[in-house]
Amino acid sequence: MRTSQYLLSTLKETPAHAEVISHQLMLRAGLVRNVASGLYTWLPTGLRVLKKVENIVREEMEKAGAIETLMPMVQPADLWQESGRWEDYGPELCRLQDRHERPFVLGPTHEEVITALLRNEVSSYKQLPLNLFQIQTKFRDEIRPRFGVMRGREFLMKDAYSFHITDECLKETYQVMFDAYCRIFERLGLDFRPVVADNGSIGGEGSHEFHVLADSGEDDIVFSDTSDYAANIEKAEALAPAGERPTATQDLAEVATPNAKTIEEVAALLNVDAKQTVKTLLVLGHAEEGQQAPVIALVLRGDHQLNDIKAENLAQIASPLTFASDEQIKAAAGCEAGSIGPIGLSIDVIVDRSAAHLADFVCGANKDGYHYTGANWDRDFTNYTVADIRNVVEGDPSPCGQGNIVIKRGIEVGHIFQLGEKYASAMNLGVLTEAGKNQTLTMGCYGIGVSRIVAAAIEQNHDKYGIKWPKAIAPFQAAIVPMNMAKSARVKETAEKLYQDLKAAGIDVLFDDRKERPGVMFADHELIGTPTLLVIGERNLDEQMIEVKDRISGEKSLIAIDNVLDLFA
Amino acid sequence: MRTSQYLLSTLKETPAHAEVISHQLMLRAGLVRNVASGLYTWLPTGLRVLKKVENIVREEMEKAGAIETLMPMVQPADLWQESGRWEDYGPELCRLQDRHERPFVLGPTHEEVITALLRNEVSSYKQLPLNLFQIQTKFRDEIRPRFGVMRGREFLMKDAYSFHITDECLKETYQVMFDAYCRIFERLGLDFRPVVADNGSIGGEGSHEFHVLADSGEDDIVFSDTSDYAANIEKAEALAPAGERPTATQDLAEVATPNAKTIEEVAALLNVDAKQTVKTLLVLGHAEEGQQAPVIALVLRGDHQLNDIKAENLAQIASPLTFASDEQIKAAAGCEAGSIGPIGLSIDVIVDRSAAHLADFVCGANKDGYHYTGANWDRDFTNYTVADIRNVVEGDPSPCGQGNIVIKRGIEVGHIFQLGEKYASAMNLGVLTEAGKNQTLTMGCYGIGVSRIVAAAIEQNHDKYGIKWPKAIAPFQAAIVPMNMAKSARVKETAEKLYQDLKAAGIDVLFDDRKERPGVMFADHELIGTPTLLVIGERNLDEQMIEVKDRISGEKSLIAIDNVLDLFA
Repeated sequence: MRTSQYLLSTLKETPAHAEVISHQLMLRAGLVRNVASGLYTWLPTGLRVLKKVENIVREEMEKAGAIETLMPMVQPADLWQESGRWEDYGPELCRLQDRHERPFVLGPTHEEVITALLRNEVSSYKQLPLNLFQIQTKFRDEIRPRFGVMRGREFLMKDAYSFHITDECLKETYQVMFDAYCRIFERLGLDFRPVVADNGSIGGEGSHEFHVLADSGEDDIVFSDTSDYAANIEKAEALAPAGERPTATQDLAEVATPNAKTIEEVAALLNVDAKQTVKTLLVLGHAEEGQQAPVIALVLRGDHQLNDIKAENLAQIASPLTFASDEQIKAAAGCEAGSIGPIGLSIDVIVDRSAAHLADFVCGANKDGYHYTGANWDRDFTNYTVADIRNVVEGDPSPCGQGNIVIKRGIEVGHIFQLGEKYASAMNLGVLTEAGKNQTLTMGCYGIGVSRIVAAAIEQNHDKYGIKWPKAIAPFQAAIVPMNMAKSARVKETAEKLYQDLKAAGIDVLFDDRKERPGVMFADHELIGTPTLLVIGERNLDEQMIEVKDRISGEKSLIAIDNVLDLFA
Repeated sequence: MRTSQYLLSTLKETPAHAEVISHQLMLRAGLVRNVASGLYTWLPTGLRVLKKVENIVREEMEKAGAIETLMPMVQPADLWQESGRWEDYGPELCRLQDRHERPFVLGPTHEEVITALLRNEVSSYKQLPLNLFQIQTKFRDEIRPRFGVMRGREFLMKDAYSFHITDECLKETYQVMFDAYCRIFERLGLDFRPVVADNGSIGGEGSHEFHVLADSGEDDIVFSDTSDYAANIEKAEALAPAGERPTATQDLAEVATPNAKTIEEVAALLNVDAKQTVKTLLVLGHAEEGQQAPVIALVLRGDHQLNDIKAENLAQIASPLTFASDEQIKAAAGCEAGSIGPIGLSIDVIVDRSAAHLADFVCGANKDGYHYTGANWDRDFTNYTVADIRNVVEGDPSPCGQGNIVIKRGIEVGHIFQLGEKYASAMNLGVLTEAGKNQTLTMGCYGIGVSRIVAAAIEQNHDKYGIKWPKAIAPFQAAIVPMNMAKSARVKETAEKLYQDLKAAGIDVLFDDRKERPGVMFADHELIGTPTLLVIGERNLDEQMIEVKDRISGEKSLIAIDNVLDLFA
């Protein structure tokens, strides 16, 4: 490709509205352009990267035995009504009507369409297992699209769905997909980690997320400093503190804490460590028919954070997690939010394992402006249950039993999931078994955010000059940068010949034939992140040499023109 | 690919709702499945064909210097308001609202998005010309989707848009695209024809359609039996008949024609050839502001058909062409539709060239149940204009001046178009010229119906057993069909080895390892249309031979196993 016949579209200035580095660099390097909120056009340079990612994903899915299909983006509403998600999905599901006023959705995912397909195509156990995938455009109507293609509304995704008679068969395919995902992210050249993820009602290790590690990641990934353990923070278990709970030594005393409403304020006022306090949060349980939802108290150590997912997964708590209103708090505790405590409450109380291990702690007195000191479980309050409802923190013992927890930031780029019978059961997908009886199928689903990977790769691989692409997904493998070509016939001839030779060898090369100053050209190529720059200048041509500049290491070296192809061997 | 691990999904019965052969065969051969009206899932076998078509299109577009991009399917309404198509497009444009009730459309085409993109990306003549393409999913809300993917609602299209300072430059790129399209359809292995198409207001030969020839095609394609001339019937010019108009020999006479309303009935009653009669159609002209649209008469020879596009392109006629209502006819002609004629009308009259060449003709008398015989132009009626407003018919002289017209059926699979300044002007897309002044760009657009090609290829290439794919787009290049593999270890070993060898050589091969009778296997492969069947049976293995069956010719031959790879050289 010649720059003069290409749409390079690099920008010198960082667009003000781009918050994260990948969005800034994708705009500056001419990878994407915004069309409307969360909608992007992929410019030629960006599309080259996207296609390379897509091809690696496709190759590894095929190697793993998955078969490619293509389902429509516009899906009939009746399938979503059948699965129950027409009601459950919420406003991220974009609903529309066709000219005959029939309802449709823009597919954010394809469980319904593929389950309906299989229902007609398979009838016997002999046709299974099957693993079908597609690489296709999805739409999710995010309430606040941001970070460029990282959280766009229209995006490219690889989604796969597998179908099985038995859970054992599902687990086998799940492992095959796990391994394929590892190979995909290795081939992409990314520092990634598969982590155990929450699996809702199914439980077990039936779900893994794949994260690209980057300081700017939105998700907290929990590692052991000793073992291979890695989990999403939503999922990482906080173990109960070791040993017996200390014995009570203080008497319960009500103290005035005027104007102290947060844990920090109360701890400062009473001169105790936040670790010696508890906070009490009121949330809603399941409403019986025709009744108000009951209010339930969650008690955490003052320095810990509630883990919404763990709380939601408790049988008593309604999902999605909903906090009690000010009125509900007043009715249940007789005070405002800043003064709630377990002692004296007559509602269900669930205490986090760490909070339950405290003795002589501080808690709210259920009376505005007052707290208790010297509170002790079982002596001052008896009717409670203990559960793991907090986020782990660095230094916690790892739930794997080895070492302590370290937390890093990650960007979720893949998710594999043992769905079980959820869709097959709702949509009546079964086959005849060998024994001749009808058997509902069990399913797995396996997603990769293809367009998101492009942004994640940049978050992980950049410097102040621009993008530092892993070689496998760089838009161009090399750029030819001639110095003052207009003034030197020899430079021009050498550059032209090298361009033809590299093209003939199948190298993705960008020939910068613009009439620009060398500084402008170098800045563009460093911004775009081309791994190898081939600099042709008069100075080195007497020795038939050209300069090679490596984008990752920054190193420069001279190489004989005749040996340039060896760089790409 | 092993059949046992694949989703073959062939059907024995032809689904009743499939009207055309390509739709029937695409369902029976397991290429697509219907999800909702006009929405299809591409099964693995169909997607293989679609991808092969897509790859050939992409390669030739790149060779022709076009650069690939990818625009979103969901487009903001404001761009369509800016171009004026938000009002003009009609109900095929699917409109939707996002969660914030902002209006969007599902893109049926991308002129607006790319014009808005270029407006921001190019500012100087130095950046031009540019030709950008994408291969992307489109949505058109057809009122009656039918014929499977031939006229679906969601479909895959290659659309390209070129941008130029001058018309000369546009014409050059247009020719490059014309040549690229010819190479694409040649490589696809299809019998196709580029034909001159109507270009609306721009005129000239600024538009060509590419048709796959097939008896079942929806469009009439006009050829010369002598020259290369080919045009869409909408566009093919009907020349004025040669020579002078015959001299009038009869007197004008009013004759009663009770109950004779059609040309056939009138001609039969009066015992004249329909060629000696004219029919008069009343349509609407342009309404002045606040006034009713004027009624205009179109006069054609009785045996000729009105060409709507030619009529619409006349300055006096409103677009889209609208016929006068019964009330408007009564008011303008004083009679019903069956008795209208030019003589005595006081509205504008436009006479087709062939009708204007008649002498002593029959026409309506503008009086119910009466016609004139012996009518003659200029003698009986003077105030008229002559224009080409009819469809050509077989045997007409070719407008190229050589030979006579032959008409064949075609399926439109491509369309290239010199757009001119329409979008650039409406959306203010210009650059600075070398002379430093702002210049509105001129554009070309170039479409190929990628998914439609799959259906068109089948319409052109099939027999009673199934599809006969051109080799370049067959889902598999070959199928290995072992005879009674379960009973013969030698057959099984040979088949397995051949499968591995062909895969290693990069051949797309389907290994039919099902436990099915040979008849079932052959029927499936003939239906799917695999070009080469490799039949492995005990009988020939003593001589280390296998049978090769060619799907196109139907010929069978024996080949040494060691030479099988030569078939694909």
